[in-house]
Amino acid sequence: MIPIVSIVGWSNSGKTTLIEKLIAELTIRGYRIATIKHNRHGFEIDHEGKDSWRHKQAGAVTTVVASPRKVAVIEDVESDYGIEELASRYIRDADIVLAEGFKENPFPKIEVYRTELKRERLTGQEDNLIALAVDSTISCPEGVLCFDRNDVSGIADRVGELFLSGRN
Amino acid sequence: MIPIVSIVGWSNSGKTTLIEKLIAELTIRGYRIATIKHNRHGFEIDHEGKDSWRHKQAGAVTTVVASPRKVAVIEDVESDYGIEELASRYIRDADIVLAEGFKENPFPKIEVYRTELKRERLTGQEDNLIALAVDSTISCPEGVLCFDRNDVSGIADRVGELFLSGRN
Repeated sequence: MIPIVSIVGWSNSGKTTLIEKLIAELTIRGYRIATIKHNRHGFEIDHEGKDSWRHKQAGAVTTVVASPRKVAVIEDVESDYGIEELASRYIRDADIVLAEGFKENPFPKIEVYRTELKRERLTGQEDNLIALAVDSTISCPEGVLCFDRNDVSGIADRVGELFLSGRN
Repeated sequence: MIPIVSIVGWSNSGKTTLIEKLIAELTIRGYRIATIKHNRHGFEIDHEGKDSWRHKQAGAVTTVVASPRKVAVIEDVESDYGIEELASRYIRDADIVLAEGFKENPFPKIEVYRTELKRERLTGQEDNLIALAVDSTISCPEGVLCFDRNDVSGIADRVGELFLSGRN
């Protein structure tokens, strides 16, 4: 079972930016990172007019695009899978999974918090929070490990010590 | 094992158009169609700036985009898989696989032939040809079943009788 960390935060809190930096930092450290992005409202991914796009538009339930170094798969599904099911169905070879866009889930979490949004925190201690990435010197809640959101090295250390020891 | 049919032909012979029509026709008949498109020179599939694109760009080896009705996966691979390996790795629930863009392969084939390209045929009888889709009344080679390329119903009948009996 590949370890899973869920990155949570309000819209515009900076989740994707943090994930980008974490992917790059952990990749430099030698780990293989997989990501899962959830879009409640659906998504478009292919380019209109491409052969694969035409296949899917014509009604194919699954379309695979293959090349010597990269493969893409687009498939219809019958339910809105959770993180665990997505990971077990689609991820076969990674050291850790970073997930974004899932509201309720039992996995360890990093919350990204931007003070200027003036909103409540999304997580409490019962939410399995492993790090709070903040944009200013808010007073760090008791029992929570706070990081400056730009301290990617520190956040990567935290993820590494919890989930990646012995993996590379 | 899901049956596989390989659609072959020179560039601009009309392969994708035929596949589109076949997907639509077979889907109307109640079958679940999967497709595999091979691009020797690689491909771009996601949209610049989207979260999933940013994940992959940052170095993720696998990126999954999930929604209630559709899932997409983009992953790095270490070799240029053949049709059979791609089908077994990525296609789990379909009645038939239509493959495009693979040169050498042992699977039953439909060749799409456009007279005006003035080229030789791509396949011979040893190539497991099940249908030749042509654009004019060329004289049909002995031992080959020829169809007008617009006779999608006839080509779908041929595919159905060979591979889909009892599947819906």
